[in-house]
Amino acid sequence: MKLMQLVYGISFFAVAAAFVYAVCLHRWVKKQPVTNKKIIEISGLIHAGANTFMRKEYRVLARFAAAAAIVIFILLPSPVWQGNVTANLSMAAAYLAGTILSAVAGKIGILVATQANSRAAEGAGGGLKPAFLIGFRGGAVMGLAVVGFCLLGVMAVLFLTGDATILLGFSFGASSLALFAKAGGGIFTKTADVAADLTGKVELGIPEDDPRNPAVIADNVGDNVGDVAGMGADLFDSNVAAMASALVMAQSLDAGAGANSAMVFCYAAIGLLASIIGISCARVSGSGSPTRALNSSTYTTTAVFMALTAAATWLLPGFQWRIWGASAVGLIVGVIIGITTDYFTDDSKPIVRKVAHASQSGSAFTILSGVSYGFISSLPAMAGIAVSALTAYKLCEPLGEGYALFGIAMAAVGMLSIVGMIISNDAYGPIVDNARGLAEMGNLGEETIRVADELDSAGNTVKAVTKGFAIGAAGLTVISLLGAYMSEVNEALAFLGKEQITGFDIMDPTVFFGILIGASIPAVFSAMLMLGVDRNAQRMVAEIHRQFREIVGLKEGKEGVKADYDTCINIATEGSLRELIPAGLMAIAATVIVGFAGGPSAIGGFLLGNIASGLLLALFMSNAGGLWDNAKKYIEAGNEGGKGSPAHKAAVTGDTVGDPFKDTAGPSINTQITVVSLVASLLSSLFAALSLFG
Amino acid sequence: MKLMQLVYGISFFAVAAAFVYAVCLHRWVKKQPVTNKKIIEISGLIHAGANTFMRKEYRVLARFAAAAAIVIFILLPSPVWQGNVTANLSMAAAYLAGTILSAVAGKIGILVATQANSRAAEGAGGGLKPAFLIGFRGGAVMGLAVVGFCLLGVMAVLFLTGDATILLGFSFGASSLALFAKAGGGIFTKTADVAADLTGKVELGIPEDDPRNPAVIADNVGDNVGDVAGMGADLFDSNVAAMASALVMAQSLDAGAGANSAMVFCYAAIGLLASIIGISCARVSGSGSPTRALNSSTYTTTAVFMALTAAATWLLPGFQWRIWGASAVGLIVGVIIGITTDYFTDDSKPIVRKVAHASQSGSAFTILSGVSYGFISSLPAMAGIAVSALTAYKLCEPLGEGYALFGIAMAAVGMLSIVGMIISNDAYGPIVDNARGLAEMGNLGEETIRVADELDSAGNTVKAVTKGFAIGAAGLTVISLLGAYMSEVNEALAFLGKEQITGFDIMDPTVFFGILIGASIPAVFSAMLMLGVDRNAQRMVAEIHRQFREIVGLKEGKEGVKADYDTCINIATEGSLRELIPAGLMAIAATVIVGFAGGPSAIGGFLLGNIASGLLLALFMSNAGGLWDNAKKYIEAGNEGGKGSPAHKAAVTGDTVGDPFKDTAGPSINTQITVVSLVASLLSSLFAALSLFG
Repeated sequence: MKLMQLVYGISFFAVAAAFVYAVCLHRWVKKQPVTNKKIIEISGLIHAGANTFMRKEYRVLARFAAAAAIVIFILLPSPVWQGNVTANLSMAAAYLAGTILSAVAGKIGILVATQANSRAAEGAGGGLKPAFLIGFRGGAVMGLAVVGFCLLGVMAVLFLTGDATILLGFSFGASSLALFAKAGGGIFTKTADVAADLTGKVELGIPEDDPRNPAVIADNVGDNVGDVAGMGADLFDSNVAAMASALVMAQSLDAGAGANSAMVFCYAAIGLLASIIGISCARVSGSGSPTRALNSSTYTTTAVFMALTAAATWLLPGFQWRIWGASAVGLIVGVIIGITTDYFTDDSKPIVRKVAHASQSGSAFTILSGVSYGFISSLPAMAGIAVSALTAYKLCEPLGEGYALFGIAMAAVGMLSIVGMIISNDAYGPIVDNARGLAEMGNLGEETIRVADELDSAGNTVKAVTKGFAIGAAGLTVISLLGAYMSEVNEALAFLGKEQITGFDIMDPTVFFGILIGASIPAVFSAMLMLGVDRNAQRMVAEIHRQFREIVGLKEGKEGVKADYDTCINIATEGSLRELIPAGLMAIAATVIVGFAGGPSAIGGFLLGNIASGLLLALFMSNAGGLWDNAKKYIEAGNEGGKGSPAHKAAVTGDTVGDPFKDTAGPSINTQITVVSLVASLLSSLFAALSLFG
Repeated sequence: MKLMQLVYGISFFAVAAAFVYAVCLHRWVKKQPVTNKKIIEISGLIHAGANTFMRKEYRVLARFAAAAAIVIFILLPSPVWQGNVTANLSMAAAYLAGTILSAVAGKIGILVATQANSRAAEGAGGGLKPAFLIGFRGGAVMGLAVVGFCLLGVMAVLFLTGDATILLGFSFGASSLALFAKAGGGIFTKTADVAADLTGKVELGIPEDDPRNPAVIADNVGDNVGDVAGMGADLFDSNVAAMASALVMAQSLDAGAGANSAMVFCYAAIGLLASIIGISCARVSGSGSPTRALNSSTYTTTAVFMALTAAATWLLPGFQWRIWGASAVGLIVGVIIGITTDYFTDDSKPIVRKVAHASQSGSAFTILSGVSYGFISSLPAMAGIAVSALTAYKLCEPLGEGYALFGIAMAAVGMLSIVGMIISNDAYGPIVDNARGLAEMGNLGEETIRVADELDSAGNTVKAVTKGFAIGAAGLTVISLLGAYMSEVNEALAFLGKEQITGFDIMDPTVFFGILIGASIPAVFSAMLMLGVDRNAQRMVAEIHRQFREIVGLKEGKEGVKADYDTCINIATEGSLRELIPAGLMAIAATVIVGFAGGPSAIGGFLLGNIASGLLLALFMSNAGGLWDNAKKYIEAGNEGGKGSPAHKAAVTGDTVGDPFKDTAGPSINTQITVVSLVASLLSSLFAALSLFG
């Protein structure tokens, strides 16, 4: 076990380095000057609003988590009346630890992001370079915190229990939080965005971030809770799931000697170190663009990861080159998915321009072309996930039984290895988006706003890429979740004295039954979220109208008259939780109904259908949304008639459709898939015992 | 074999009755007066235009079919160098017969439809009742022809060869035609529709069917080639596929004695007789609505079918009640899918009204709510297909080995039994749509146009229902296609001395690889068709502009000046074939690549992924399209501000997006699925012999 100790040492070093570096970056961000009173005040409001949302959200979540922990204690890893109580207690504790660590990481991210936004706004007065660094380093704190906590948590669970299956509990915890943070945050952010736009830009004709608009703070809060906390929780979830499933397999392979668990930790630790190096290299050079700066640090991280893991594989005993190959394939495919996403959503590439051009014929053509290219854009990513899974499998198959599936898990670990860098890029987006708003509200002048705009636009492009990356990683991880479900079911079947399941044959009509229903759930789930955003936005619009009617002088911008921002934040918060719950319950109910109707095989099919159509719709909606957003920006930059032209009006329609596509529905599907898998695994023993046709 | 003779007798009687009745109806339609010269002239132009399209389409198809027939002769049912030449020759001949019979049925449908449209237009002057009868009976000729030819063809093939597998060739032929007729016709119809609307309604502000518009004839031709010939070919295809796969299974079950083949024929014949009864009952009663008349004859047909099949099952030796149950489940679920589709697309139900109401906030909300409800609407149909497959399977499982899958095939036969009635309803739509246009172009007066409008609106509602029905039937049929593919592969593997495939396990990464790629193909396919419509419409718009520029007096409507309708028809025709081919090739290429990369298992997954996401997207696009169309009509009827209001403008955007959704992309996915299955089966021996990872 000397190797394992060495690897634990490396991992611990990586975690410590990440935390120390995060603290340094945070201090650096806080040291940057912010003097404008107006900005300090508004930034404080955003910070307070984000805290309000998170407090309420975490309160609802706490109840949910407590209930889930009890169910887990009773049922997992095996029903408490058959197995040992300690294991079940560990599982429940690991579950809670998963929710808590992810929540803490989210909290830290929000804290830093709401400090960095005001500083980036003022920094933009000094040009692109300093403002970029503030935005990026603020985001990097979140990236380092997420990956640090993830690795630390996984290490702690494994060190304390020695049993990798307990990690599934930890992973379930992370998923629960992700559902609330990502889907809830997604509803919040679009509620505020849509309501603010409808009342401000459309009805009154005031600018996007005018402080007279009562929804303006909620809109800025939304960027933080949706993109910083939400995306962070999502990637925390994927990263934990990838590591957990890899370690479960590694442990059973290690029983026949081998260094597989060590490889998982070592690669994850190297990924974190590579991210630290990548983050420290990020800066805008000369007259360079912020987009290029973000992308080039991603490539640096990738190269460092591949080199260091190759070195480790060469130096350390028992490390296999084929497994290194699998992780490298995963990472390279992740980068390729990112690049193809970029091709479909970047306004310097032809697709965005085609959609912008089509907008000249009216908004119907903006929508039709966007939907069409969104559909097409799903193919490369789907194919990438498929090819990397197959390649990793075939690469590792010769190593012996069990190694093939382990290869897929390691491809997922490889793809997610640079997640620290990815989150840094992603959290950069809302910080500079906020900074742009603050620059406008604080009257910092046109030049500052222009700089902030450029930073913001880079954030948008990179966001599309990281979303593609997140969906790709989720796609690889869920294959492992299917495996986890199967082993749960077989344990339950063994206890019942029933025949084991060796797979899920699509020619079996119970499996087929599950597939068809499973395939429609992501569509219904995302539809419910989108309709929820709409309903919630209408509530907020009503409140804004009330304030304009009842608060004298608000509309005219009279000195000293303030909008009641808090009520809007409360509406967004309560509405987002209220609208999220029916969608979540629908997915859970569908799982339960299919399980009791068709038994464990039907659930196998259900999960598969869910994954296939979920990935497709998530990619479609994220990419189409990003495409419309950038087509609008491209026209606003003076093309196809520019601002105010008929093409621009059509593009605004596209953007409004795309907003809930890309920020609410699309990215929430990931977590819907994970939640459904969780419920399936939890209830597998019941499905095995009782079912109508199973 | 006495039973079989009896059943052949019944089937032959049903076919004869259908043909005799069709001839009577056709004579009746032709006897109706049409006197208005303008109408006779325009109706003649529509007829000629439809013939132009079909001639060109059939010419391209003939080349394609010849090539496919050669490949079939070489490879199917087993490679010609191993098997017997007669079987391969029969298969190729059956293939050609499938394309020809379907083409003839389409030709007849177009002929009658283009005669009925002018008569229905004049009939509308006499009120709802006579005009309804003309439209409906014109459509019924098509319905009877399609089902008659289908049953006749299947009987002939089986009678001549005695081998049910040859029927697969017949079925492949029907699919090839359906691809061209449905997808090609879909591009044609929307090209003309979009171009006519953009130049006429939007640019010039002239009415929808103004004869000055050079695209107006192409638009009316499109209704016929898309909805009469296209939908007919699609349902011919599904019906043949359902019967063929049921008969293949029945024949192998009959080897152990039994009357299964007899049941298939008997039920199909009863379905045709029930359709004849249903058609003869259809009329608008008192002050009744045409929608109710169409629906009630569907219910009559359903009831007659269930009663007569029950009687046959009771009377005839060897007929099994469980199998009757399976077919009844299929039919009932088909009707339920129709009713739920109606709930989502009928403007007397809440969903259409919600979308109309949302349109008040702008077109983005029309789109968002339509997409959301379209997504949700897929669930009941997907669940219906899933439940009927599972129920039929479990119902027939106790009858012995092989009966379970036969049960699913019989559910499909049951669902499709009333297809004669369904096609009649569906072909009614374009006839009365044309009639409305003719009434306007012939200046038949406001009251006549109002009557024609009411008939047209009923056609729209019923069209959504029949589309749901068609997709549901395809969903059940494709399960059998998966089975057909597997037996093809196993024959090839047996010849190669390789291990047989017993199923496709979703935990196998080659299967999973296929699933992910297969799931994205329908999205890409439909996107390519939609972009094709857009490109083609732009070509036609350019031509219309040219005519307005170059033909003096056309714009002003000077007496004697005529638009050059033919050039527009040619553009639509050539463009539709040109845009169809890349999409078809993409689907075929993807199948070939996946097959050579992953082997037969990957293709099993590929077909499954294709089916699951294909059904989902087809339902989504058809229903969302129908929903938007009727939301626009609902507003035009004076609600939410009525014609010309902002809500109306938003709803028009929704309708324009919905048009290619529901008439081009959505319904073509069915045929894409069948074509991919065909290619997979054809090349299965190559995939089994050569593949990278298989």
